[in-house]
Order: sequence, then structure tokens, then C-alpha cells
Amino acid sequence: MPWQERPAGSTDIMWRYSENPIIRRDQIPTSNSIFNSAVVPFEDGYAGVFRCDNKAVQMNIFAGFSKNGIDWEIDHEPIVMQPGNTQMIQSDYKYDPRVVFIEDRYWITWCNGYHGPTIGIGYTFDFKTFYQCENAFLPFNRNGVLFPQKINGRYAMLSRPSDNGHTPFGDIYISYSPDMKYWGEHRCVMKVTPFEDSAWQSTKIGAGPIPILTDEGWLMLYHGVINTCNGFRYAMGAAILDKDQPEKVKYRTQPYLLAPQVAYEQVGDVPNVVFPCAALHDINQNRLCVYYGAADTVVAMAFGYLDEIVVFTKENSL
Amino acid sequence: MPWQERPAGSTDIMWRYSENPIIRRDQIPTSNSIFNSAVVPFEDGYAGVFRCDNKAVQMNIFAGFSKNGIDWEIDHEPIVMQPGNTQMIQSDYKYDPRVVFIEDRYWITWCNGYHGPTIGIGYTFDFKTFYQCENAFLPFNRNGVLFPQKINGRYAMLSRPSDNGHTPFGDIYISYSPDMKYWGEHRCVMKVTPFEDSAWQSTKIGAGPIPILTDEGWLMLYHGVINTCNGFRYAMGAAILDKDQPEKVKYRTQPYLLAPQVAYEQVGDVPNVVFPCAALHDINQNRLCVYYGAADTVVAMAFGYLDEIVVFTKENSL
Amino acid sequence: MPWQERPAGSTDIMWRYSENPIIRRDQIPTSNSIFNSAVVPFEDGYAGVFRCDNKAVQMNIFAGFSKNGIDWEIDHEPIVMQPGNTQMIQSDYKYDPRVVFIEDRYWITWCNGYHGPTIGIGYTFDFKTFYQCENAFLPFNRNGVLFPQKINGRYAMLSRPSDNGHTPFGDIYISYSPDMKYWGEHRCVMKVTPFEDSAWQSTKIGAGPIPILTDEGWLMLYHGVINTCNGFRYAMGAAILDKDQPEKVKYRTQPYLLAPQVAYEQVGDVPNVVFPCAALHDINQNRLCVYYGAADTVVAMAFGYLDEIVVFTKENSL
Amino acid sequence: MPWQERPAGSTDIMWRYSENPIIRRDQIPTSNSIFNSAVVPFEDGYAGVFRCDNKAVQMNIFAGFSKNGIDWEIDHEPIVMQPGNTQMIQSDYKYDPRVVFIEDRYWITWCNGYHGPTIGIGYTFDFKTFYQCENAFLPFNRNGVLFPQKINGRYAMLSRPSDNGHTPFGDIYISYSPDMKYWGEHRCVMKVTPFEDSAWQSTKIGAGPIPILTDEGWLMLYHGVINTCNGFRYAMGAAILDKDQPEKVKYRTQPYLLAPQVAYEQVGDVPNVVFPCAALHDINQNRLCVYYGAADTVVAMAFGYLDEIVVFTKENSL
Amino acid sequence: MPWQERPAGSTDIMWRYSENPIIRRDQIPTSNSIFNSAVVPFEDGYAGVFRCDNKAVQMNIFAGFSKNGIDWEIDHEPIVMQPGNTQMIQSDYKYDPRVVFIEDRYWITWCNGYHGPTIGIGYTFDFKTFYQCENAFLPFNRNGVLFPQKINGRYAMLSRPSDNGHTPFGDIYISYSPDMKYWGEHRCVMKVTPFEDSAWQSTKIGAGPIPILTDEGWLMLYHGVINTCNGFRYAMGAAILDKDQPEKVKYRTQPYLLAPQVAYEQVGDVPNVVFPCAALHDINQNRLCVYYGAADTVVAMAFGYLDEIVVFTKENSL
Amino acid sequence: MPWQERPAGSTDIMWRYSENPIIRRDQIPTSNSIFNSAVVPFEDGYAGVFRCDNKAVQMNIFAGFSKNGIDWEIDHEPIVMQPGNTQMIQSDYKYDPRVVFIEDRYWITWCNGYHGPTIGIGYTFDFKTFYQCENAFLPFNRNGVLFPQKINGRYAMLSRPSDNGHTPFGDIYISYSPDMKYWGEHRCVMKVTPFEDSAWQSTKIGAGPIPILTDEGWLMLYHGVINTCNGFRYAMGAAILDKDQPEKVKYRTQPYLLAPQVAYEQVGDVPNVVFPCAALHDINQNRLCVYYGAADTVVAMAFGYLDEIVVFTKENSL
Repeated sequence: MPWQERPAGSTDIMWRYSENPIIRRDQIPTSNSIFNSAVVPFEDGYAGVFRCDNKAVQMNIFAGFSKNGIDWEIDHEPIVMQPGNTQMIQSDYKYDPRVVFIEDRYWITWCNGYHGPTIGIGYTFDFKTFYQCENAFLPFNRNGVLFPQKINGRYAMLSRPSDNGHTPFGDIYISYSPDMKYWGEHRCVMKVTPFEDSAWQSTKIGAGPIPILTDEGWLMLYHGVINTCNGFRYAMGAAILDKDQPEKVKYRTQPYLLAPQVAYEQVGDVPNVVFPCAALHDINQNRLCVYYGAADTVVAMAFGYLDEIVVFTKENSL
Repeated sequence: MPWQERPAGSTDIMWRYSENPIIRRDQIPTSNSIFNSAVVPFEDGYAGVFRCDNKAVQMNIFAGFSKNGIDWEIDHEPIVMQPGNTQMIQSDYKYDPRVVFIEDRYWITWCNGYHGPTIGIGYTFDFKTFYQCENAFLPFNRNGVLFPQKINGRYAMLSRPSDNGHTPFGDIYISYSPDMKYWGEHRCVMKVTPFEDSAWQSTKIGAGPIPILTDEGWLMLYHGVINTCNGFRYAMGAAILDKDQPEKVKYRTQPYLLAPQVAYEQVGDVPNVVFPCAALHDINQNRLCVYYGAADTVVAMAFGYLDEIVVFTKENSL
Repeated sequence: MPWQERPAGSTDIMWRYSENPIIRRDQIPTSNSIFNSAVVPFEDGYAGVFRCDNKAVQMNIFAGFSKNGIDWEIDHEPIVMQPGNTQMIQSDYKYDPRVVFIEDRYWITWCNGYHGPTIGIGYTFDFKTFYQCENAFLPFNRNGVLFPQKINGRYAMLSRPSDNGHTPFGDIYISYSPDMKYWGEHRCVMKVTPFEDSAWQSTKIGAGPIPILTDEGWLMLYHGVINTCNGFRYAMGAAILDKDQPEKVKYRTQPYLLAPQVAYEQVGDVPNVVFPCAALHDINQNRLCVYYGAADTVVAMAFGYLDEIVVFTKENSL
Repeated sequence: MPWQERPAGSTDIMWRYSENPIIRRDQIPTSNSIFNSAVVPFEDGYAGVFRCDNKAVQMNIFAGFSKNGIDWEIDHEPIVMQPGNTQMIQSDYKYDPRVVFIEDRYWITWCNGYHGPTIGIGYTFDFKTFYQCENAFLPFNRNGVLFPQKINGRYAMLSRPSDNGHTPFGDIYISYSPDMKYWGEHRCVMKVTPFEDSAWQSTKIGAGPIPILTDEGWLMLYHGVINTCNGFRYAMGAAILDKDQPEKVKYRTQPYLLAPQVAYEQVGDVPNVVFPCAALHDINQNRLCVYYGAADTVVAMAFGYLDEIVVFTKENSL
Repeated sequence: MPWQERPAGSTDIMWRYSENPIIRRDQIPTSNSIFNSAVVPFEDGYAGVFRCDNKAVQMNIFAGFSKNGIDWEIDHEPIVMQPGNTQMIQSDYKYDPRVVFIEDRYWITWCNGYHGPTIGIGYTFDFKTFYQCENAFLPFNRNGVLFPQKINGRYAMLSRPSDNGHTPFGDIYISYSPDMKYWGEHRCVMKVTPFEDSAWQSTKIGAGPIPILTDEGWLMLYHGVINTCNGFRYAMGAAILDKDQPEKVKYRTQPYLLAPQVAYEQVGDVPNVVFPCAALHDINQNRLCVYYGAADTVVAMAFGYLDEIVVFTKENSL
Repeated sequence: MPWQERPAGSTDIMWRYSENPIIRRDQIPTSNSIFNSAVVPFEDGYAGVFRCDNKAVQMNIFAGFSKNGIDWEIDHEPIVMQPGNTQMIQSDYKYDPRVVFIEDRYWITWCNGYHGPTIGIGYTFDFKTFYQCENAFLPFNRNGVLFPQKINGRYAMLSRPSDNGHTPFGDIYISYSPDMKYWGEHRCVMKVTPFEDSAWQSTKIGAGPIPILTDEGWLMLYHGVINTCNGFRYAMGAAILDKDQPEKVKYRTQPYLLAPQVAYEQVGDVPNVVFPCAALHDINQNRLCVYYGAADTVVAMAFGYLDEIVVFTKENSL
């Protein structure tokens, strides 16, 4: 998996890839921007589902492949869905995908346009043929993120109920399903913080990459948003959720782990955005590589050591 | 069931009970207002679940009983819930209940406060002991209304996804459940109308009483809202939904059936509100009696002939 | 023309008709409300153009006739327009008409729905056949009011540029036309007042009846709006415009002449509205009879002596 | 002082005067409305300072006198101020006065227009000659209410920092002054309540009449506001503040004591307003008479027994 | 005229000038920024009207001259207007000019401050003496753009009715005039797109350079705006209007032609703005050179082949 | 004190330090950003109070020291306050400090979180031990700036009453105190300008560094804000206040002195911010060095000649 050591002299818990961004806004001919995308190990390399907004600024998801996780070949045509557990696969737009392998297949969730944004679900076995399932929830919702295994026998999904606009609020909930079709047992996981306690995550929050199981519980990277007088700023933090009852938050970073501080994060279609959507990790090597959208324009990577992130989360918890 | 003939000279499809309101705002000692409430036939009379806001303006639901459907004895203490299909019966507030008998028990839905409004579900066999189930959906939602029988083997519920405030938007959706715990197969049923076509229902709409099965399909009474320069005005209309696929709207009234035009509807805690939550009907006698909240302050009744309403809906459909 | 003497003991400059409202909300079978309407002397009685919102709350204008100006027969079908000086007679809605006789015909202006509200123009010779002309202006505009004679050889129209919503602003402008088709020479006539000076007209203002030529100049009755914490309140004032350059305001009432203070003005579809749209006057008898919409629901009348109003306007001018 | 016994059958803690309103909107010739006014015992009767908005809806305060506290003679001209402890007596408007006798004179506070609303201070010895002092605070502030005696040697004033509009927020603070000119030691006294706990006071609150010293501490009547979908509703509650440290709230009513439920409170220039500004009390007779503005249009009275109100506040405290 | 070939390897329909920006923000001593400006061939070179905001950020228009269309000499004093077809040449501010030669003179239109923004009209023969005419429309309006020849005997102007603020809406209309003084026959030309279809132009649109007559009809370049969570982003598209009835849109680009993607477009007084106001073209050489404001700070150029743009517009039409 | 001559060829009244920014965002290990900070001469060098937002984006103030005013050592822990003239030293956050030496000590004012932003006051003799006093005002207020000497025997403070959010309004007031505890004699000093006159300061204004006494009166540098369609832009201007009655504005710059035009001012956590908080000056050498926060991220310096600034302010006054 992609990796770079921490830069000399740095004490940061997470650090950027020196060759960021790894995916340019015009990597495919029709794209206005490519960002907020998801990758997973696949065969002897990696596969991914990429958010490419075309030059009409229509949002859609595209498959892509890479040998090293850094250099990507992205299809020039968006993913076409086959009916999965439903015939109703209407979709006005698709954006901000996540991907996870569970049991026998790769599940994809994304923000699906069905009379407003809600959580679309699909799956593939090969990243060539894709099947779309029933939407998980009623509108309005965003940032649906599956756990990589069933919990107490049910699929589990994080999401952020929202509204139909730019949504100046948003907390993280969890829901469960016996079958990826009907969902229930909705629980509030964690909410925005009081401004005084941790302003960077005081406006809205949303789950990012697929949670990673650690000895302390589920490591959930997420984005938090502060509402400055010149707009939203998106940064990344971490939380540890209880292994068996992930609606219980054990720890949660008061400081952010990564915030927009370099040009490709500060300048672009939406300035000041760090938006993590996927992560590769190697438990044995203790390595984490996070893929994040930068400025709603490009894809970048950041690295860290898993154990350091867990310790930091515990020691800097709200 | 309660009934009065159409007043002489009137050509209205629906008409008010001459002794309205039937429930005063101070009918129980602690109440600020009693409105938006639900009734059903029960034993040799009627039972109901009433929204009573107390003088702290806390919203809760109360059981009540009546011999004739007009004169009501409402409990002085709110309903206490036992765990039903869940131990999680948190509720910051309860309001706008609906009640329906399905199979073996009376199901109650209401707007339940769980980190914002969502749809609470409960049941009772006797209106003495009540059991609370898992919330149907994630917040934010209001106006959850069950169908009185399973459709294609699943429970079916109408609802209106919304936000956490006064919600200047809102359309009617339907969701299905195999077990009253997990919900899915969400479909948009009908949306607000263009202002030019039918302004009274151009801001938001929400299902009212339990739908009534007629030869034409499900008769769904609903409220529609116009946003005047001095606030919202709530009125009542009707739609006919397909019997087997109720997400299909066959007919929908362009004109309203009842709008605020008398003092107890025009003046009160929230002026200009007609908000139907329940209906009694007698297919054989062709009679319909709608209970509606007036001005968010009291409960009133209106009458009509079922077949006339169906014909009117068909002939005045959008 | 309709008339009642000032009530004994009253010192009001204008007073209400004792039998108000003169037109009920349900005066025709399909109407939700009838208000903001215009009347003129016609043949041996009076004719009028009435705003009737139907029970779908669609806005349209209807012709009506009266022998005495008080008891009105209103057509049950809305006015159908023939092409006048244009083939483009699209109209999504019509509301708030004014009527005036100039030269050889009755001109009608109204708020016309063409991709938003603008000023529609039409004419009739007999109140049976109506001809629609080019809209006077681009959207968004409301309250177009013609002067009853050409000024310096051109038609003159007051209007209030606005937006597409409930418009929390609005000033009165004048425009001129050589031919009722092309308009120009737009001038600002008068603006809202500072809150401290005359709060009742500090949010928006709009011309009401056709201006009346007096020795002092054009008497323009208008509505003014205050934005209270519970919505807009519409009241009526008067201004005197220069005879030859009506964009020059000679006098303007600091106090209102009539504000919502009785039930039919305070309670209705839009509470607290007095909205004058027409006036009959008799210079010889010094009498003025104003027709105004009350609470966006009904039509009412108020009376006054022309010379008293002019004197009051001069002596209480801002 | 004015008094009526509790109506037979009532269990209300406070009840309305049967002849309400006691002051009509047109009690003086120029007034649009008279409301939110203050009264005190004076000589062998009562004096008051009345908010009269004139027919230009300019806000000002007027002196008035009464033998019985019910029938009032209000001056036809507003109060003219002489310089008190300052030459700067600019005032764009004056509204919502309170009056209290301290030491040797009657102090008046009001909402004073100085580049926005702030708290004006004045005094009189005879209700004929009035002196204006420095404004207590910077804008923006409303509802300044003095305590009737010094506390720890300093004058004490409650107020509600706000903004320059209709202010959808507002909590009660206290400030102290050695000399009625310079103010400091600002403390937060009490804030709005969570919606779930007591919705009627969840949007903004403000002190009402001069606090009354009881055995339990200072009895502070106040108004609370709920933001309904059709605007603000103002009701009245009570709190008990610590005698020596009035920034400490000992008790505070969860239910309201009086809310808009009769026509003159529900219908008027601003519907649904009960706004207390003054109270007469007789410790020996255990009587309280509250004067409140109703619907921003008229003045009304309500009665209660002091000890019952104190007990109710303790037993129904948040 | 200015020209550069398409960069090697590029497939873009339009490409930027390599030496952009061509006009710096401080090109004249008093300027805060120079942008959104218009140029035309003049004598043996080019003349232009430039929007220069001074360091008080007052908006005004300045004349300028160039031999090659790239290097500009801009007057240090704003244009002074002489009365043209009116004495009323009041102007609180002038911005976003367009220039076109019709018949015998150069006509200038701009956003003119007259109680809010409206469309100012002026003309010059020599770019030394300028004459101001009647404003075309009532406020509020922006982006008035004349056609370069009469259509059916009348002058024709595109414009965008708006409001007095930052205007989160706006469609393109056309109006006609026999004499550049009175305007009428207003028609809606094209509206914003549904978000799903072409988000970059879903918030507001406005005409840019003077339309160019091609074999397919009028080529109208325009700006479209998307409302991101961090503000508006302005990009450029193209439409083909019917030659004789330009209110009929034949084709309209679903993708944009140019959007903010380089530093001088992404960073400045208003980030992320590409705002075309003028174009030079050479039909014989098939060349187009567009002048656009970048980030509301500087002026830049982009090039394209006319026939390619027309084909692209046809083949990528909504 | 720090100084650089005006760059060759420049005619600017104020110019930037060539090595800007002088303080990086990560100058201390925990900081997200360091900006809007204050410095004073201290012992044989300089001391300062710095706003450092940590990586939780909690706002606090830190002491720092420098030999040359350019290279700063900032403490790694925030300032801890001892009780000064009060025991109530609650502070939810501290930001935007100013520092001034008066009589015998260094006074610090800052925006202090006490149920919203208000003006905190503290002092130190040595920048090691700090004492906190009573807040000067009720919330909501920002930008409290003391004069460096008593005026007519009282301390004087500029401030900007505001609200609890991003505050789209704000004018500069002055208040006086005999004792740094009680404040009064509040006067409006200067307000925002009409958009047409000087748009850069038309939304809100606030005092910046400690005023400097010159022959013409108090030189007050301040920030002004324009509300662009993509957010606020903060720039710097100057005013001259009367020496003895500083509420009287003698001159005020119509143009700004410095506005965001270089990368570190245009890009950062809040783009387009120049926010002056402190200044060093040397009357004899006629030099001024202003410290300003740039983009809410770093600290920068700008220079100018005092006499040129005073002359410019007089000659370019509104």
C-alpha cells in the first residue's frame, strides 16, 4: 500500500503525501473535478469508485484501477447499475462514494439523488458489473458508511441525516439491517461539539472512511465543519467506537488530525476542504493511508501510524 | 358514529359540526391546548390518543374514551410506555398521534422527539397498557401514518421527511416493513404543487387520518400548507392512492376540502390551521367524520359522504 | 355613489361603512376569498374587476356589476382575454386589478404571472370582451396603477418593483408610455420611510386606487406596510403628487388614514390587512368612497370628504 | 388597589379582570395603540407612564393619572425630558416603560432609540417634570427593569441584550451601578429554556414588572416567547431571585402563569401577546395586580395572591 | 485582433491567453481592481470601457485604448456623461459595461445605480464625449446587453431582472425598443437549469458579450452560477438564439466552456469568478477572443474558433 | 522598532513588510493559527499578547516576547488569569487582544466569552502575572480598544456592539469609566458608510490598534468590511478623532489604506482578511508599524509615515 515516512522534524500525527494531489481535476477528459472518492484492495492491486463531476457539473461515480494505489486509471464512462434487490434504481445524481468488502462482495454506498439526497447502496464482485439496491433511508441523508463486518448479526451503517441544501447542521447516526434492504434500530452516535470545546467540528460532522477495527474498538475517521464568516471549513478527526455497540463513543479527538493548510486544500471549487472518504491500512505494519478530497477539486493522501492515532485519540479525547 | 347532515343550502363537500370545537383547550386541568388527536372505535364506544400540550408547552399524548365520539374523557396523566420491540424508548416529546387497528392490536404512531422529530411507533391492546417500539426512521420526520392493513405482506407507512424547525418544505413518502422494526422500500408518493396550480398545498403536505379503502383505492385525507406573507395556512385535501401500489397517486384534489374560515380555526395559538389526524367512517352509511386540530388549540369535527368525496376527488383532480 | 356620513362623535378623517364587508369570501360558488378589487362607474351603475381566489387558491380576475356600488353580481367564470396589442397573452395568474377609463375605453392593470409577477395591461369597452396587451415591465413588479389621463402626452403608470416572494421592501415608481406598449422614463416617486418617522409605511409601499386630480395635484391613496414580529400589517395613507410632474411628491401623510382595527380586517387568510385598490369620488359632493381588501379575504368600503383628506395630507405631511 | 376575587370554579393561579381591557387603543385622540405600560402608587391614587404609539406608529411615552388604578387619564402629549445627569438626551423613540420609586423619586426606564434600542433612564418627582439620564448600556438592549432598592449599596437593573430587529433570542442579565450613570458587574441571571423543558419560554425572555421582595427573595414576573410557525407568542411566568445576589435564580416556573387565550390578547396589531410591565401589590392583603399589554394594542389587568404565586413558583420550578 | 493557437495537447474548446491577466488590478493609480470590461474595434485599434473600482470600492467606468487589444491605456478619470435623450442622468454607481457599434455610434450599457441597480444606456462617437440616455428599465436589473443590429426594426436588449442584493436567482430576458428610450415586448429567453442537469448554471445566468450573428443564429456567450457551500462560482457557457426571434433558444451548452481553474480566477476579491463581458471576432479567420473579468479583480482573455464553438453548442445542447 | 522604507516606485501610503508573514500559523506546537494579536514596547524590547487558536480551534491568548518586534517567542501555554477587581473571571474563550500601557501597568482588552462575546479587561505589570477585571459591557460586543490615557479624567474605550454570530452589521462606539469597573456615557463614534460612498467599509467597522495622539487628534486605524457575494472582505482605514471629545470624528478615509491583495491575506482559514490589532510608532522618526492578522491565519506587518497618513486621511476624508 502507498506509504511515506513522517517528514523529518514533524511531530504531526498525520502527514501529507509529498506528491499530492494524486488525482488531478482533469484526469479524465470530461471531468470538472475528481474528489471525495473511495478505494479498496482488489486482486493484486487496488480498485476504486471515484466521484467525477463532469463539465456540466453533474455528479456521478466512476470505477478506477491502480497497481500501487497512487497512479489510477479511471474509466471515462460512469458506472451503470443493474437492478440488485430492487427494480427501483432511479438516481438523479451520485456522489461521495464509499466502498467496503463484506463477506463475498464489494458494497458501495453513496449519496443518491432520489427527490433529494439519500443513501444509495450497491454492490459489485468485479468492479465491472454493478448492482443497485434499495436506498437505505428516506431523504435527506448523506455520508452513509458501512461497517466492514456484521455486528450482532446485522449490517451496520453510519449516516448523517441532513436537509436538501448546504445543511448547516448534521450529526452521525447508526442504523442496522438484517438484509441490506430494511433498516432500523437507529441510534445517535455523536453530535457536533459546543463551539467553545472544539470549534472545528461545531457545525456538522460526518463519517469518512470505512471504520477500522482496533484493539480499542472501531477507529472512525470523520470530517467536521466550522462555519467561518467566509464559509465552511472541513477538517478530519478520529473517534473510537465500542466494538459491539458502535453507537457508544469511547474516545473522540478534540483537536483535528488534518485541516486545510496547503494550496490544493485551500483553493479550488470549494476552498478549505479536507474530506476523507477511504483508507487503506496494514495492521501488521501499523500503517494507515487516508484518501481525501481536497477543495472539492482533487484527491490527496495522508499517512499515519495506526497505534499513534489510537493513542492520540484516547489522550486528546473530548 | 358522530353525524350531522349537510346544512340546508350548503353545497360544500365537507361541513363542520355545529357544536365545534368538541374538545376545549382546557379540557384537562394541566392543558394549554388539545388538538391534532386520533380516535378509533373501541369496545362499545371510542378510544383516542390526544395531543395535550401542558402549560409549560411540553407536548405529550394522552388516552381518552368516549361513548359517542363527541364527549370525551381524557386521562389527566400522559401515556406511559413499556418497552415493545426495543428497550430504547427515549422520547423528548410526543405529538400529533395517529391510531389504527391492524390484526390484533391498536398501533399508534406519533412525532417522537429523539434528537429531533422522527416517527415513534407503539401499540396497545386496551388503551391502558402501551408498548413503545423502535422509531421507524432517522430524524427528521413528521406525520407518520400507517395503512390499516398489510400491503403485499408488509406494513406500510406514509411519512413526511422534514427538518428540525418549522420546515418550509415537505412531501409525502411511503415506506414498508416486514416486522414494524426495520423499514425500507421508500418511495415518493406525492409532492407539493406548483403555486400556480394549487397554492394551498404548494409549501408542504402531510398525510392526515388513516387511509380508507374504497372501490377506487385508498382515500387519503391530507393537509396542505400555503406560505402567506403572514405565516402558514393549513387546509385539508384528499387523494386516491392505488390499492396495491399506494405510491401511485390516482387522483388528488386541486381545491381544498376544508380551510380555516371560522373563528376557532382562524384564532388561537397558531392562527389559520385545519389539521386532520383521524376519521371515523361507516362504509354502509357512506359517512365520514373527520377529527381535526383547529388553530393548534382545540379539536373539531367535519362530516362528509364518502362517495361524494371520492367523486369530487376524481372530478377535481390535478 | 355609495355614501354614509361620518359616525356621530368620530373625528376620523376616513370611516368604515357600517355594513362591511360588502363582498363575502364565498360570494361566488368557487371562491376561497374575494378582495383587492377595482370598481368604476359604468353605464347607469358600476362595473368592477374582482380578484377571486378559488378553492385551489388560484388567483384570477372576474367581472362584476352593481346598480348601487354596494350589492355586486360577480361573474362565476374568470375574465377571458383576447389578444390586444400582442399575441403573447400568457398569464400564470392574475391578481390585484385596477380599472380606469381613459379616452375611449376602460383600461385594466393587474399583477400578471409571467415567470413571476409583473404588470399586466388590458382593456375593455363593455366589460364583456377583454383585450390583453403587452406586459408593461419585466418581472418582478406589482401594484401597477394608471393615471386617468395622459400627462404631457404620455400614459403614466405607477408601480412597485419587487421580487418573486413576499418582498420585504418596495418603493413607488412612475413610468411613461407613448402607446401603452413601450415604457420608459422611469422615476422614483416615493420610498419607504425611516422607522422612526412613520413605522406603518417603513417596510414597503404601493399605489392603491387610480389617482384623483385635485386642486393641489394628484391625490394618491396607497398602502404602507410595517414588519411586526408577527408579520406584515397593511394600512392606508395618502400623498399629493405634482399635477404635471407626478414623480414630485408635494405632501404625504405621516399618520395612516385607515389601519386594521376591526375583526374582518384583523382576522382572515392574511391577518391585519387594509389594501385599497379602487375609489369612487364625486368632486361636486366632495365625497370619496374607497374599496379595499380586508385580511386578504373580503372587500370593504371606507368614506371620507375629499377636501378634508387633502387638507389632512398637507397638514400632516412628512 | 384594583382587585377582583378569583372567579368561581377557577383554579388558575392568576386570573383576568372581567372588564379587560382597561385602556383602549384609541384612549387618546392620536393613538394607534396603548400597551406595555407602567403604573405606581402616587399621592392618593396612581400615576403611570404609558406607551402610546401614534397613528404614524411612532413610539413614545406619556404620563397618566388615576384615582382607582383602572380608569386612567392619559396626557395627550408625550413626556418632554429635561437634562438629568447628562446633556445627551437624544431619543429616536421611547417604548415599554417601567416605573419604580427609589429613595426620593420615581425612576423610569424604557427602551430608548439611540442608534438602535438601548435602555433609557429618567426620573421625576411629580410626573410633571421629567429628567433624562445617560443611557445605561450600549445598544442593543431592551426590557431594562430596576430593583426597588439598592442591593449591596448599588442600584441594580435587569435587562435583555438583543439585536436591532425582532430578535429571535434573548436572556435576562443583571447590572449594577453606584450612581445611575456608570454600570458594570454584569451577570447572566437566566436564559431561555430547552424546547423540551418549557417551550413557551424557549425563544426569548425578558423581565416584566419591578421585582417584589418576598420572604423567599425577589419575585420577578417575566415574559417568555415561543416561536410558533406563525410567529412569536408571548406569555408570563415567575421566578424567585436571591435577595442579596439576585443573579442567583432560586425558583422559576416551568408552566406559564398567563398566556394569550382571550380575544383581546389573541387579535390585534401583534396577535398572541401577553406582556407584563407593571404590578401593584399589597403585602398585607396578599394581593397582586399585574398590568400587561395585550396584542401590542391595549392594556389589561390580571390578579393573583402573592403567597400562592410564590408557592406555585417553588412547586413548579424547572 | 489578439490571438494565440490552442496549446499543444489541449482538446479544450476555449483556452486561456498565456500571459493572462492582461490588465492588472492596479493598472491605474486609484484602482482597487479592474475587471468585467468591454472592448470594440475602434479606428486603427481598439477602444474599451473598463470597470475600475477605486480604493474606496466605488464602482465606475473608464475609457481606454489599445493598439493590439492586449496592452491598454486606461484613462485615470472616469467617464463623464452629457445628457443624451434625457436630462436625468443620475448615477449612484456604474459597473459591468458592454459596448457595441450600431448604425452610427458606439452604444454602451452598464449596471446603473438608480435607487438600486438597473440598466444604464449611453453612447459615444469617439470615446471622448459620452451621452447618457434614459435607463432602459425599472430597478432591479443587471447585465443589459444590446444586439449589434436592429431586429425587426427595433433595438433589442438582453437583461437579467434581479434584486438589490447578491441575488440568488436570475434568468435572461429580452426587450425591444423603437427608439432606445421606451422598452417593451419583454420575453423570457432562458432560465437557470435544474441542478441535476447542469449545476454550474443552476443558480443564475446572465448574458455576457454582444451576441455574434452566425449561420446558426445569434451566438450568445453567458455566465452561469452555481451556489456552492462556500459561495457562488461563475463560469461561461454558450447558446444559439434564433436569428429573427432571439427569444427562442435553439441550442445551449450543458457543459461550461470555461470555469475558474487557474490562480487569477480562483483567488481575488471574489474567488472563483469567470465573467465574460466582451468579445472580438473575425468571421473570416474563424477566431473569437473573449475578454472576461477574473475573480472580480483583473481582466483576462480566452480564445476559440467560432465554428468549433457553434458545433460544440449544438452537440452538447441541453 | 521594525521598519522598512517604502519600496522604490510605490506611491502607497502604507506598504507591507517584505518578509511577511512574521508569525507562522504553526509557530507554537499546538496552534492552528496565530493572528489578530497585540504588541507593545516592553523593557528593552517588546512584549505581546497573541491570539493562538489551537488545533481544536479553541481561541485563547498567549504572552510573547521579542527583541526586535519581528522575531517572537510565544509561550506554549495560554495566559492564566488571577482575579483583578472581581472574582468573576469566567471565560469561555478569549480572542483578538489589544494591549496598552496606562499610568502604571499594561491593560489588555479582548473579546471574552461570557454567554456570548463581550469585552474582557485585564492587566499585567510584567507579562508574567495577569489579572482579570469585570467585563466592560453586557454581551454582545467585540473589538474593545482602550485609549492610551484618560480623557477628561475617565478611561475611554472604543467598542463595537454586535450579535452572537458572524454579525453583518457593526458601528464604533465609545464608553467612559472612572475606575475600569463601571462604564457609561456611551456615544456613537462612527457608523458604516453608504455602499455608494465607500463600499469597503459599508457592512461593519471596528477599531484596530490603540489610538495614537497626533497634532490633529487621535489617529484611529480601523477595519472595515464589505459583504461580497462570496463572503466578507476586511480592509484597513484611518480616522482622526477629536482629542478631547473622541466621539467626534474629524476625518475618515474614504479609500482604504490596506486591503487583501497578496497570497497570505487572500488565502487561509478565512480568505481576504486584513485585520489590524496593534501598532508601534515613533513620533520623532514619524514611523508607524502596524501588526495585522492576515486571512485569520498569520500575523503580518505594514509600515507608513505618520504625517503622511494624517494628511492622507484629511485629504481623502468622507
